[in-house]
Amino acid sequence: MTQDYKQVAAQKAKSLLEKIPSKWILAQVPSADEEPNAEEYLNRVLPSEEVEITSKSAAELLRLQEVGQLSAYDIAYAFCHRSALLHQLTNCCTEIFFDLAFQRAKELDAYFFQNKKLIGKLHGIPISLKDQINLPGITTAIGYIAPHISKEFEKKITHRSSENDMSLIAKILQDEGAVFYVKTTVPMAMFGGETSSNLGDTYNSLDRHMACGGSSGGEGALIGAGGSIIGLGTDIGGSIRIPSYVHGLYGLRASSNRFPYLDIANSYPNQIGVCSVVGPICKNIDDLILVSSVILGDPLCSVDPRHIPLKWDSSKLVGQSKIKIGFLKWDGEILPHPPILNNIEKLKETLCKSDSVFDCIDIDEKKIPVKLSTLGKLLLSLYSTDNFEEMEEFCKLSGEPFSKLFQQCFVRPGKVDTVSDFANKVGLKYEYQLKFDEIFQDLDCFIMPTYSTVCWKQGESDQIANFYTRALNVLDYTAMTFPVGKVDQNDTGYTRDNFTNSMDEKNWKYFNLDDQLGKPVSLQLVCKRYHEEQCCALVKKIRDIIERTT
Amino acid sequence: MTQDYKQVAAQKAKSLLEKIPSKWILAQVPSADEEPNAEEYLNRVLPSEEVEITSKSAAELLRLQEVGQLSAYDIAYAFCHRSALLHQLTNCCTEIFFDLAFQRAKELDAYFFQNKKLIGKLHGIPISLKDQINLPGITTAIGYIAPHISKEFEKKITHRSSENDMSLIAKILQDEGAVFYVKTTVPMAMFGGETSSNLGDTYNSLDRHMACGGSSGGEGALIGAGGSIIGLGTDIGGSIRIPSYVHGLYGLRASSNRFPYLDIANSYPNQIGVCSVVGPICKNIDDLILVSSVILGDPLCSVDPRHIPLKWDSSKLVGQSKIKIGFLKWDGEILPHPPILNNIEKLKETLCKSDSVFDCIDIDEKKIPVKLSTLGKLLLSLYSTDNFEEMEEFCKLSGEPFSKLFQQCFVRPGKVDTVSDFANKVGLKYEYQLKFDEIFQDLDCFIMPTYSTVCWKQGESDQIANFYTRALNVLDYTAMTFPVGKVDQNDTGYTRDNFTNSMDEKNWKYFNLDDQLGKPVSLQLVCKRYHEEQCCALVKKIRDIIERTT
Repeated sequence: MTQDYKQVAAQKAKSLLEKIPSKWILAQVPSADEEPNAEEYLNRVLPSEEVEITSKSAAELLRLQEVGQLSAYDIAYAFCHRSALLHQLTNCCTEIFFDLAFQRAKELDAYFFQNKKLIGKLHGIPISLKDQINLPGITTAIGYIAPHISKEFEKKITHRSSENDMSLIAKILQDEGAVFYVKTTVPMAMFGGETSSNLGDTYNSLDRHMACGGSSGGEGALIGAGGSIIGLGTDIGGSIRIPSYVHGLYGLRASSNRFPYLDIANSYPNQIGVCSVVGPICKNIDDLILVSSVILGDPLCSVDPRHIPLKWDSSKLVGQSKIKIGFLKWDGEILPHPPILNNIEKLKETLCKSDSVFDCIDIDEKKIPVKLSTLGKLLLSLYSTDNFEEMEEFCKLSGEPFSKLFQQCFVRPGKVDTVSDFANKVGLKYEYQLKFDEIFQDLDCFIMPTYSTVCWKQGESDQIANFYTRALNVLDYTAMTFPVGKVDQNDTGYTRDNFTNSMDEKNWKYFNLDDQLGKPVSLQLVCKRYHEEQCCALVKKIRDIIERTT
Repeated sequence: MTQDYKQVAAQKAKSLLEKIPSKWILAQVPSADEEPNAEEYLNRVLPSEEVEITSKSAAELLRLQEVGQLSAYDIAYAFCHRSALLHQLTNCCTEIFFDLAFQRAKELDAYFFQNKKLIGKLHGIPISLKDQINLPGITTAIGYIAPHISKEFEKKITHRSSENDMSLIAKILQDEGAVFYVKTTVPMAMFGGETSSNLGDTYNSLDRHMACGGSSGGEGALIGAGGSIIGLGTDIGGSIRIPSYVHGLYGLRASSNRFPYLDIANSYPNQIGVCSVVGPICKNIDDLILVSSVILGDPLCSVDPRHIPLKWDSSKLVGQSKIKIGFLKWDGEILPHPPILNNIEKLKETLCKSDSVFDCIDIDEKKIPVKLSTLGKLLLSLYSTDNFEEMEEFCKLSGEPFSKLFQQCFVRPGKVDTVSDFANKVGLKYEYQLKFDEIFQDLDCFIMPTYSTVCWKQGESDQIANFYTRALNVLDYTAMTFPVGKVDQNDTGYTRDNFTNSMDEKNWKYFNLDDQLGKPVSLQLVCKRYHEEQCCALVKKIRDIIERTT
């Protein structure tokens, strides 16, 4: 090794800043204490025309382009500028390529000028990509140092066949007119519920003292403060939902292989016991529906041999006459913090009271068919069957150690599974799925916590147990996290004398109203497998009711 | 072990005969030389009314019941009688329960009498089941001796939770009025392209000297001579298609988990590198479409967590305006026997000539994206990752050795894979799928051989290489084998001086026109993954054209 890995990381960080036009370099980056909330700061310092553009939905941006009031270039400029500043505040990007974005935007504008119509359903819409998505000529590093040392290392780590290959899902978006401009940070090998690696830490953009979630943490921070409105993340244990959650965004974890994963870099990519899924993180539900329908409506999806050939079906967006919705306040093991409990209760009241189609049913946590912790533990055991030996091999390439985050939150099992061990776990998963599915006998969907705390300080994710997201990956249910409110002064703690276990106690004692005040509270809506359209429709309906009643 | 395994086998065979009403016991079972063709023999010795019933399609049987001209009991009686004799001629059954069938038929007749309508879409239709399908109170043995020794052994081997559990697919059929009456033989652990185990051999019902195929061999023999019109088999390497093939039947291998596999007994059930699939074997294509639509149209399918939620879509049965159909005469490695080559050529001519919608395209065997032998070898390597240790364990329960057939055709790898070895194979499969899919760039579907010989003598399946079926399991394509003609005097050998390899030479030299004369020739129609409706529609269309032109 001719270079120390820390040197490589420093060089990478420096070269990234060099990709930002010098006029967009902040003379002094305000500290987190000075400017905790990057969103508010940017709204103040950026030109108001740009703030207006970045606050719009994709549908609005499309309409404004269609009537000639806005160009793709204007849009690209505003989002590039905002994300450039945001990167300096939160370290959310791993690749920056504004030049390519401007070039693409100009091509789109030229197309529109010539043809008097938009090129596709996402004409000029900036889309940010988690650093697992391959784009031609752009490095993919999935949180490792080695890809920044050599292209050969990159190929090895990302299983990328050539520098010019492109993830199928990116191709679909690009063909519809999307504009790519940044790729966003992940923890090493995507292991972590926050985002830090030997390349650096990424911070929550709503409160820069706080963790941005993970593993799609760069996406969360970027979209959270308006540096993007639509992004792609991946989720094998909560990696789309957690960053969405801590930033009050909409994040969809679809069932396995519904969104095409072809040519997306992944760690341990042929582990098929539980699949990482790719999916959208969005500022609002309408954009999430738009981008999902564009991807899943595209015949190109069938190019991926693993893709489940369920075309997006808009007719399923139309709700049933009466929807039985369950409310699971907690799992009987880790009690979520008061703002979460209160908001579940509030949402239930709101949905019951509204002359709505919802039939609200409490789910008794003592009657959950399989404990969420049992499912969560199986998940860990399914994706660690190789004893993380691939990670070890990839770390050796650069001489970097396992990331601190990994060491804090994961334990190596100590041996590589035999295929028979693995088959037993696969069998267990099937058994649990079958058993848990009973919950849908009397329900169409249910609400549950996404996490057991609203937010936590950077570096402290080991303080909170995370079975609420992980359990659903084993079950392979369709789940979306979505914002329902904000923490307020009334969200004080309940009195608790007894705890179910030490994790419960640790989590509960972590609650601090001052830290959480004003932060978004989000919940998960859970539907059966491959019910993405229904999940979207229901979240939209709930969002409408919340908006109407508050 | 208190009993020798051979004793258990002999007792099992005896007890099975005791389930047959004594009036249906043949005074003397004619030898294979005396009566090679069981179908012809049965048509001669059975009452003509019964022969008429067993020669009808399910649609006709439904219609005749609906107009009151035939009762479910009449139908059950005719099929039980015929299968009772057929079992004595070919040893095709592993469980016989005519009493339950008669009882069910009487209930159905009573229902019809009371309600003046049929109970469901399969009212009174006898359906035979491969001995992997669980029925309440009926043993499932999947070719092992041990389940016939104790219920505990059965549970262990079949992963059956209780004696009363029932495969989901059987429940769906039963709810629609199907009548179950027999379960049919399989080789030990379903390993084999013919059907023999320590419990005995099953013979081809069209020529009792010949192999009946495997592993759904009992189904093939039973349906082949009219003892059933619709049966369920399973296929992980050709097990539906091979028995269908040698009996001139329609056998559909659907893509993974389209038909629900829940609670079907299987060996190495949580091996998910390549899935065994369940599917129909039928006397005619219309019945195959009927039973497929009934199963895949049933909401109960969603009870299986692994089921792919693609509801049967009849609109896909309507053909496109122009269908590009490829013709792959051979794989460039093992040249099929002359009757097969001639029939591919004939079919091509027929489809071209007919004022049909088919656009016929030759596929150059040198341009196949991945060699079929490469795919076939990967298949073997995927399902032998446990070094067949489960089989060894189950054999030990009774003291039986590995079956002769297994020893003849399979080699134990010598070690259990690690999960990393397994992941590499899974990755290779994905790569091959991606590469092979290129074949569909210019084609909607293609015709290829199902096997490299039309038939072979019992016990000689090791003489023929079988990559034509196996390759498609790795690719996970939808494939149906269907009859196109019969071997005739003109199907003489081509002159060949060169062979591609020793398997090719061995296979070619195995050709003997006398053995094959008059036997059905079948081919495979191959469609993309999850194109079951299209595959059915195309085979039906081809069948119609063949019938019209011959």
